[in-house]
Amino acid sequence: MDKAQILVASNRGPVSFSVDDDGSLGFRRGGGGLVSGLSAVAAETDTLWVCAALSDADRKAASSAPGGRLDKAGFDLGGALVRMLDIPPRTFANAYTSVANSTLWFVHHMLYDTPNKPHFDADFRGRWDDYREYNAAFAEALVTGAAENARVAVQDYHLALLPRMIRGRRPDLRITHFSHTPWAPPEYFRMLPAGIARELLEGMLGADHVGFLSQRWADAFLRCCETFLRAEVNWGTRTVDFGGRLVRVGVHALGADGEGLRARAAADDVAARRAALRELVGDRKLILRVDRTELSKNIVRGLAAYRELLVRHPEWRGRVTHLAFAYPSRGDVPEYREYTESVQRTAKEINEEFGTADWTPLILEVNDDYPRSLASYQLADVLLVNPIRDGMNLVAKEGPTLSQEGCALVLSTEAGAADDLRDDALMVNPYDVTETAEALHEALLLPAEERRARCERLAERAVALPPQRWFAEQLRALG
Amino acid sequence: MDKAQILVASNRGPVSFSVDDDGSLGFRRGGGGLVSGLSAVAAETDTLWVCAALSDADRKAASSAPGGRLDKAGFDLGGALVRMLDIPPRTFANAYTSVANSTLWFVHHMLYDTPNKPHFDADFRGRWDDYREYNAAFAEALVTGAAENARVAVQDYHLALLPRMIRGRRPDLRITHFSHTPWAPPEYFRMLPAGIARELLEGMLGADHVGFLSQRWADAFLRCCETFLRAEVNWGTRTVDFGGRLVRVGVHALGADGEGLRARAAADDVAARRAALRELVGDRKLILRVDRTELSKNIVRGLAAYRELLVRHPEWRGRVTHLAFAYPSRGDVPEYREYTESVQRTAKEINEEFGTADWTPLILEVNDDYPRSLASYQLADVLLVNPIRDGMNLVAKEGPTLSQEGCALVLSTEAGAADDLRDDALMVNPYDVTETAEALHEALLLPAEERRARCERLAERAVALPPQRWFAEQLRALG
Repeated sequence: MDKAQILVASNRGPVSFSVDDDGSLGFRRGGGGLVSGLSAVAAETDTLWVCAALSDADRKAASSAPGGRLDKAGFDLGGALVRMLDIPPRTFANAYTSVANSTLWFVHHMLYDTPNKPHFDADFRGRWDDYREYNAAFAEALVTGAAENARVAVQDYHLALLPRMIRGRRPDLRITHFSHTPWAPPEYFRMLPAGIARELLEGMLGADHVGFLSQRWADAFLRCCETFLRAEVNWGTRTVDFGGRLVRVGVHALGADGEGLRARAAADDVAARRAALRELVGDRKLILRVDRTELSKNIVRGLAAYRELLVRHPEWRGRVTHLAFAYPSRGDVPEYREYTESVQRTAKEINEEFGTADWTPLILEVNDDYPRSLASYQLADVLLVNPIRDGMNLVAKEGPTLSQEGCALVLSTEAGAADDLRDDALMVNPYDVTETAEALHEALLLPAEERRARCERLAERAVALPPQRWFAEQLRALG
Repeated sequence: MDKAQILVASNRGPVSFSVDDDGSLGFRRGGGGLVSGLSAVAAETDTLWVCAALSDADRKAASSAPGGRLDKAGFDLGGALVRMLDIPPRTFANAYTSVANSTLWFVHHMLYDTPNKPHFDADFRGRWDDYREYNAAFAEALVTGAAENARVAVQDYHLALLPRMIRGRRPDLRITHFSHTPWAPPEYFRMLPAGIARELLEGMLGADHVGFLSQRWADAFLRCCETFLRAEVNWGTRTVDFGGRLVRVGVHALGADGEGLRARAAADDVAARRAALRELVGDRKLILRVDRTELSKNIVRGLAAYRELLVRHPEWRGRVTHLAFAYPSRGDVPEYREYTESVQRTAKEINEEFGTADWTPLILEVNDDYPRSLASYQLADVLLVNPIRDGMNLVAKEGPTLSQEGCALVLSTEAGAADDLRDDALMVNPYDVTETAEALHEALLLPAEERRARCERLAERAVALPPQRWFAEQLRALG
């Protein structure tokens, strides 16, 4: 079998499978920057995407493909092969849910209720072994699938140990690791067991190049390397001298896929949703938010800010609708279930407090509907993006890109997207409900002209580094 | 009335009052480094201690004294006058409980359950106004009570705004502010509303000298000054150039009061407690902890580590007793009530899991008994001090100081005391239950000789800067 020149490793792959009514396997191509980025290079180069099988249908597909390699023109991946790893379910659950999503995600987003969690006990050590094993399964697939001097792009906190694992076996490979999350400052990262903190950093420093979405996260990583590895950091060139090699740390601020988004938003299903939303909102101003119900997205404080807007500026009552899309996320993690209840309770309270016979102040929608999200971007007067901490936040970039009349952006200082958008967004401290309420007020009052002008500049910056160029940059960083 | 040359401002004063059975006022001198520090200088200089009335009895005492100044030889303060401020109860509750203890304390100890708290909303702003008013009440008392060029020692996060307030009115005064807590890194401090973050830093920079218990906290403060005030920091001299003045930032690592402690521990009531404890523990090894039930003290993970010790090293079952003193604290804050329940539940579970007819693995005591604490320091084989974050932690210093046979110290890296004690303590990451369990095991196994030698060195370092010298150092820093 041919070896690949370019390889991607990520937990979630570019396709997912489902079992159709007749028992046959159907598939769906996924979205996201990486998929379009890789598809663009796959036409010219032998490429292989290694990912985990995430469902029984994925496992079935993987086991029926020779060597686990899936190869379908219909994937629309420019010819890239996909290898789905059939990782034992228990190993996968421990690595993915317990370690990656309930520990590393919490550390980097600073989400812990520290007096009570985390507990790094003997059970955690068992799960950590599974995280290692999960990384090792990827290493095996990459090492056997890579051509001489191939370039390998490892994605995210699920696979932090992978660069070092593959370098040990294939020193010819050129490796980059990219983090889609923030990175914790040393003062927070240090809550990880010392050996595990070092293992994570050393794992990533197995790469030639380590990429982040914002300079803030890159610098936090460098400070962690100084603190926990006593590695020498050159702050001028942003390189780490470790294990006799120089590792470069770079920033690649992923932007929205303007072209792809606009093409998708021109489709009929989006037009139909748009018409329905127009009907729903009427001539009221529309404040929009679009999020997964993720602890870092700060939906409850966003709703509280909307409430405070209606208290401090009662003139908006009856003249504004807040449409909050809060799609389900990580229902397997208890904190997320509680948070979802809290979102729903807060929403209900607001409608009970302010709702009238002919005005529903807040419409909370929990069913994911992608064309409806796109239609809402087109119509929103104000887009609220207020995460407490966020690697980038593409909603903040996609909203202005699709806006038809110009939308004002209320944006958290703690989103990576703030780097690109702070000049024309109304910036808020996500913990500051009052400031957020006042920013919503200010956004609603922006003259149409200024709003349009700001939105145009936001849209321009939002697409400055579209996914294909973002991915190409990382490969270029490998020489 | 005479003006004072040296003034101290702190929320809690050196004496507290109570109403006796016959309706008359009784009083009690408080403990702590500041009280003995001030008493030592008061004999030679006119001194005034300004504090808040904390109870109805305090208010009664304050209102019956001329100008609120309390002056009794029996206070045993070396002649220092005390002025107790009768702050309106609602103002006090908002300033002390809501802002100082439920916000600033949480920020500096990084205790927030960030997805859910804090909410800086309109209600918080109202409480912040009360915090300002509370600081202003102290400012008024200091400004009117201070002699020309007097030195003023402002204490802690309750009074962060005070230095700037008094400098504005009395530029002749020489002012120091001392923080008994840690200081939050900028990545955490930034969750405060921007205006409030600046107001706190500017308030403290009204001083000539700003003191901390550890270099770590001092450096975090300096980073905050750079980040939020864009103040110029000289990292060589550790000075901040702000508002046309140079503010010095210093470290004064408060130690135990060896002499005072040993004198107190020689009293009969301590001997009686010691005999009772000997009876209780028998010939088993004694693992001790002594804490307020404070979220930062990490009692639950400490108990979990004891449990893991009994699981991983069952040879200790029946041969060890864990005595956990967890005194009540801040019952007016909901998180503390929940945490107290969690401590009690965990303790009960451990006794149910491992207890036998003739062995109670864990004795949890929630009634504060100072002589019993001292007696337990004398007897402990192992002292566990595992806070998730702590300005200093004097238990870690007092335990070895009073130990009779030499006690092993298991100490969190996150306590300020780690600076002085890390060489001879067994250091642990407080989130790492397994590491803590293993450190307890290692501590129990330390040969008597080594344990004694380590404990002697710990005791020596623990009293390196006793309270009187610690306080004198701060005054000297004012020239």
